[in-house]
This record gives sequence, C-alpha cells and structure tokens, in this order.
Amino acid sequence: MPNYQSQSHRSHSAATSTPSAPFLCLLARYNGGREERESKPKQQKKRTKVVNPWEVAAKDGGKIDYDKLIDKFGCQRLDQTLIDRVHRLTGRPSSRLPPPWRLLRPPYLQDVFRVPLVIQLTDDEKCMWKNLTVEESQRLARENAKDIIACGFDITRTFIFSDFDYVGGAFYKNMVKVAKCVTLNKVQGIFGFSGEDHIGKISFPPVQAVPSFPSSFPHLFAGKDDLRCLIPCAIDQDPYFRMTRDAAPRIGYHKPSLIESTFFPALQGETGKMSASDPNSAIYVTDSAKVIKSKINKYAFSGGQDSVEKHRQLGANLEVDISVKYLNFFLEDDAELEHIKTEYAAGRMLTGEVKGRLGSVLSEIVERHRAARASVTDEVVDAFMAVRPLPNMFD
Amino acid sequence: MPNYQSQSHRSHSAATSTPSAPFLCLLARYNGGREERESKPKQQKKRTKVVNPWEVAAKDGGKIDYDKLIDKFGCQRLDQTLIDRVHRLTGRPSSRLPPPWRLLRPPYLQDVFRVPLVIQLTDDEKCMWKNLTVEESQRLARENAKDIIACGFDITRTFIFSDFDYVGGAFYKNMVKVAKCVTLNKVQGIFGFSGEDHIGKISFPPVQAVPSFPSSFPHLFAGKDDLRCLIPCAIDQDPYFRMTRDAAPRIGYHKPSLIESTFFPALQGETGKMSASDPNSAIYVTDSAKVIKSKINKYAFSGGQDSVEKHRQLGANLEVDISVKYLNFFLEDDAELEHIKTEYAAGRMLTGEVKGRLGSVLSEIVERHRAARASVTDEVVDAFMAVRPLPNMFD
Repeated sequence: MPNYQSQSHRSHSAATSTPSAPFLCLLARYNGGREERESKPKQQKKRTKVVNPWEVAAKDGGKIDYDKLIDKFGCQRLDQTLIDRVHRLTGRPSSRLPPPWRLLRPPYLQDVFRVPLVIQLTDDEKCMWKNLTVEESQRLARENAKDIIACGFDITRTFIFSDFDYVGGAFYKNMVKVAKCVTLNKVQGIFGFSGEDHIGKISFPPVQAVPSFPSSFPHLFAGKDDLRCLIPCAIDQDPYFRMTRDAAPRIGYHKPSLIESTFFPALQGETGKMSASDPNSAIYVTDSAKVIKSKINKYAFSGGQDSVEKHRQLGANLEVDISVKYLNFFLEDDAELEHIKTEYAAGRMLTGEVKGRLGSVLSEIVERHRAARASVTDEVVDAFMAVRPLPNMFD
Repeated sequence: MPNYQSQSHRSHSAATSTPSAPFLCLLARYNGGREERESKPKQQKKRTKVVNPWEVAAKDGGKIDYDKLIDKFGCQRLDQTLIDRVHRLTGRPSSRLPPPWRLLRPPYLQDVFRVPLVIQLTDDEKCMWKNLTVEESQRLARENAKDIIACGFDITRTFIFSDFDYVGGAFYKNMVKVAKCVTLNKVQGIFGFSGEDHIGKISFPPVQAVPSFPSSFPHLFAGKDDLRCLIPCAIDQDPYFRMTRDAAPRIGYHKPSLIESTFFPALQGETGKMSASDPNSAIYVTDSAKVIKSKINKYAFSGGQDSVEKHRQLGANLEVDISVKYLNFFLEDDAELEHIKTEYAAGRMLTGEVKGRLGSVLSEIVERHRAARASVTDEVVDAFMAVRPLPNMFD
C-alpha cells in the first residue's frame, strides 16, 4: 500500500503563528519494486534500536518506542488543540472531519488548505543506497509518480520532480548553501555514516533539505521567499529536517515545519517498518484480491484469543491486532468501524471475520487504485513533472 | 598573470595509444580578485610539506620537490619522445615549434590539435572554500571568464561553464556515479578532509571529476562516448584526477589523460605557489606598468651576485633567477632570450638590466591583455557560456 501512516505526531512548528499560506513538500521515498524485493536482504546488524532514514529496527521482537523518539527528536504530540485549530482554519465542520490519521494524507492537506505541493522523487538516493543504475532509478521514479498521482493530487497545485532531472540552478545553489552549514562530524552523528560509506551518501542530505525552501523552485515561488513549508513525513525522516532546521536561519531562510507520523505497521505486527525485502510484510497495490486475502489470513497479527471459547469469553486485544489497525485507516464508514471494534473486543466477532472484512476493504481500494493508476498515462506524468508556473496554486 | 606554468610534466597517459581526436578540459581555479586578496590570510599551518588543491607549501624556505611529487603521484616526465610525438601528430615543423612550456598553453593545444575545449569555472568550490556568497562567486566567475576569453580561445570550439549554472542533468548523474565509487576514507586520505570540514567540501570532488567524461556534455558530445579527454593543469590538481582515473573504468568511462605543470614561481623565488593573500608575490593583469616595474625591482629574486665586481667575475645563477624564469616563458624572441641568458650567466649583463627587460615585456603583455579583455563584452561571455552544440569543433 502507499506508505500511509496510522497515527501521527506533530513536530517542529514554525516559529511564528501567523496563519499565512504555506506550501507542502512531500518526500516520496519510493519502493524499488520487484527488482528490489528480490535482491538479497542485507545482513541485519544486531543493534538494540535503530531509527534512521534507511533502517528502522526495534529491539528484537519489541515495538518502536515512539515516546522515546518524540523526546529524542524534540517533537510535540499531535494533540486535540492542534487538530481543533486545523479544523478552525480550514473551516470544515467538526462533525464531518476525518480522524487524524486521515487528516494527514497529503491529498487531504492539499485539498483543505488549498496550497501548492512539491513532491520530491529521490531517485538519486535510490541509486546511491540501493546500487541501482541511474536509468533504473529514474524508471522506478516514474512508476512511483504514477502511484502518487493516482492518489488524487491536484495538477494545478502540484509539482512532482525527480532529483536526477531537477537538481541544478537555484536548487543546486541552495544545496551548496546548506552543505556549507553542516560539518562531516555532524552528518556522521545524525545519520551514522562511517568512513566506508561512499561520498554520495554524505553529499545527499542537502538534496533532501532544500525542497523546504521556496527559492529552490523559482518557477513556482519567485518573489515569495517568505512562504512557509510544511512537510508531512514519517518519523524516520526527522534527521534530515533537524539538520535543515538547524541550517535554515544561518542562510536566511525560514525553518520548515513538519507533521511526522508513526510507521504503518507490518502485517506481522508493530515491530518496525514494512520491509521491502519481505513481500509478506505488506500488501502491495500490485497484489491480486486472492493474494491480499491470503496474506491477511496468514500473516496479519491477531489480537484474538487462541481458541474460540476463550475468545468468546475474553474478546480481542485491539491494541495489537493488525487487522483493526488497518481498518482504522482504510475503512471509510466510521459507524461500521466502531461496530467492528466493539463486537471484536467483546468476543462476539472472530478474527476470521475481521480479516475477511479487511480483505474486502483492501481489495476494493487496491482495485480502485489500479483503475486510477491505469488512467495515469505518460503524458499525465510529464504534465505533473513539467517545470512550469502554477498560476492558480493558491486559488 | 594568468596562471601559466614554466615547466611541465606529463602524467597519466590514456590506456591505448590510438591517436583519436580528444577533447580538452580546463579547470579554471580562479583568483578571487581584490576582495580575496584583502581578506585576512589564513594562519599558515606549520607543516613540512603540503601539496593539495588548496594549499601548496614547501619546507620553510625550501623548494617544492617535484621529483618526489612525480614519484608520489605516479606521473611521467614530459620527455623529448613525447614532445616529438606531439610535433609529429600536429604536423608543425620542428624548427618553428614553441618550447615545451609554451606548448602547454591551452590556446596552443586547442589550436594545433583542432579540438573542442570545455572550461569549468568552479564557482561552487570558490563559494565553499572562500566563504563567499553564491552571488559573489558567480560574479567573480564571469570576471574570470573575461580573462580566459582574452587569452584567445576559439568560440567555435570552446564551451565555458560555471558549476552553479551548469550542474544538473547528465552532469549531475555523472557526479552521482563517481560519488558512488569513492568512500569517505578515500577522500579523507586524498584531500586531507577532517570531521570539522563541511560536507560541501566532501561533495565537491565529483563535481571537478565529471568534466572528464564526454557524457557530461550531451549538447556537445551526444553519441561520442568514446572521446578521450586531456586535462592540462598544475600538479596540485592531480589528486582530483587520480580519484577520477580510479573511478572511470568502474562506471564504464575512459580515464582522462593529464598534462601537469609545475607552479609558475612567485616573484620571491621557487618556494611555492603565488599566494592570493600576498599581492607582491605575483604580477596581476590589473597592475600598471609602474607597479609591474616596481614589483620586479623590489621582489623578483635575483641570481646575480652581491656586488657588481663579483657579478662581473662569477656571473648570475640562472637556476634561481626569477626574472630569467619569467623571461623563459614570456619573451617570444628565442634569439634574444638566448642572448640574455648567455650574457647574464657570464656576468656581462646585470640584474637591473634583465629586470628592466622583463618589466617592459610584462608591461606590454599586460597592456595587450587589457586591450583584449576590454573587447570581451558581456555578450561575448554569454556566447562562450551558452549551452549550445559546436558543430565545427573538430573541423
């Protein structure tokens, strides 16, 4: 599935509270597709806990401790006060609001705030970290762009770019400005680079930093240097933007703000991120209904009891049940969702039934996505990726 | 003066001996001009011997030991066999050939080989090493381009580019390819980077590497991936191209070949490179005839004897005499040059006379350069720097 997130935290707000129109920046850290999934998984290092943009691992069998990450990264929780404020600013009536985890879908944010969005496809990063050729990385970026476009972004407010295509000019100048603010010691501390790492990795953080700055997009934001940038991303991307927020005021730019989400859990449970090297850890938009059903039945971690008798008596533990977590996110009908949770928690509904419902919900979404994606032609991709002004981006 | 070199060595020849038409690549590591000269000189570290692209220092008071550098860098001396071969290939009759040090002037090479030339203005490097703003670095690059153009390059075969303008696309893709081949340990070993250095410096070597590859210039060399590249440069740039030659075959490219020169000596003698922080160590193209005369009289290290009597008796030591070294390079009339050397070595000519002749030679050259530079308008610079095909570059 697209890397939507099930719960969210807010982090690193802008320094002022002026509700001026910002722009959104989305980092598409795309999956390398089948080629990557079939490549040999890397030897997993035996570390207690690793969370960086390329590796997310909890203590063996444990959960990611988001509370610790929030403290470590200096984030704030996304609390009701902020949610209320978002609702007030967007003017959407409270009764018809999506739950917070849906609120953070980028198409929703773009829609309710009516703001421009830039989407960075980091094909250069893919090429450097995954040992893919430049050409293959670019091909995968376009494939990924089709999935992104199929999610429903507004072409009159959205600019999608690949680093291999777009790095240069104002963007490169900003890369150099950021790079001058960051010592080697610092990136080694933040990202854990070692002397054995190639210098492409060490050069990369400024590439991911500079879409935060409106001056990196002169065709969109010339003369609008005061625009604020909001970046919705998963919490593992935080290191890039701590670095960016540190550099920004030193080069005369606003710090970006971030909304950071937890990871959408793997089918096997909340022990980390879905892994590209384990195709059974996630549902793919390329999976058939049959495969989806089978993956859920076999792998989705259940909070139900060992026997039907015990289940009827004790009910399911919704806190660990993956099917419920997925339904929380994907089932649009709030009333049905509440019903399922009540019945399942009470033991009146069995794991098999919940899994069956999830299977049909996901199959339907995947089918819808597939149809939407099929309509995204190369011409549509070219149109989203054209370096062009967006005259109506704030209308 | 433009950083012409007085003697030269050949280094790192291409793997095959096929005399196919190559292209030339020139790295213009330009002087920052008055602003830079007036900035506080850096504390010179007390090191025995340092030769890297940003620092050239011999043991206190000593000379750069080129023999050691040639061994260390794995270069070959530019011997008569190679010079004869160049003459044979260019078809220039032996009797009318310039001495080797003139042979290596890039305009001469371009002229006799009738090859395209790309000239890289490393304004990004300037910005990162000298703490200049992006804008100031770009302004200085254009000023430098005017001096380069005034040296007499052929616009139908020459593409001048600044990194801030040109990095991107095929050039950036090649940067990533090179960066993937070079570990942090390696660049630290080659360039002496430390943890306190900013990551812009660590990102830079691939930027200087990739003009070696024809695919970095698709508007010039599309479909000509087999072109060889010859880089005339001073020996302190060797580290970049050892790195480049190491990476090239790993990414399917030819290694560049290099002709490396020694440093044009400072007026004070052959103890290192001319220093931007000491305006009296060099003659500038902006110096008046009066200043040139005064600098030579005051600072040009003399190989003459302490007294006229002793001089008449022993003669001058031409090996250390800076005026003779400069005349070797700048005096066009070979017969007069030989006459001066004979008379001066025999003590029949005095230092003051030699210095006087050098002063008039340099004043004339500077005056000619000034006139040539005055004719280089912004439109001419734009024309040289336009990203355009050069259809007649091999004619």
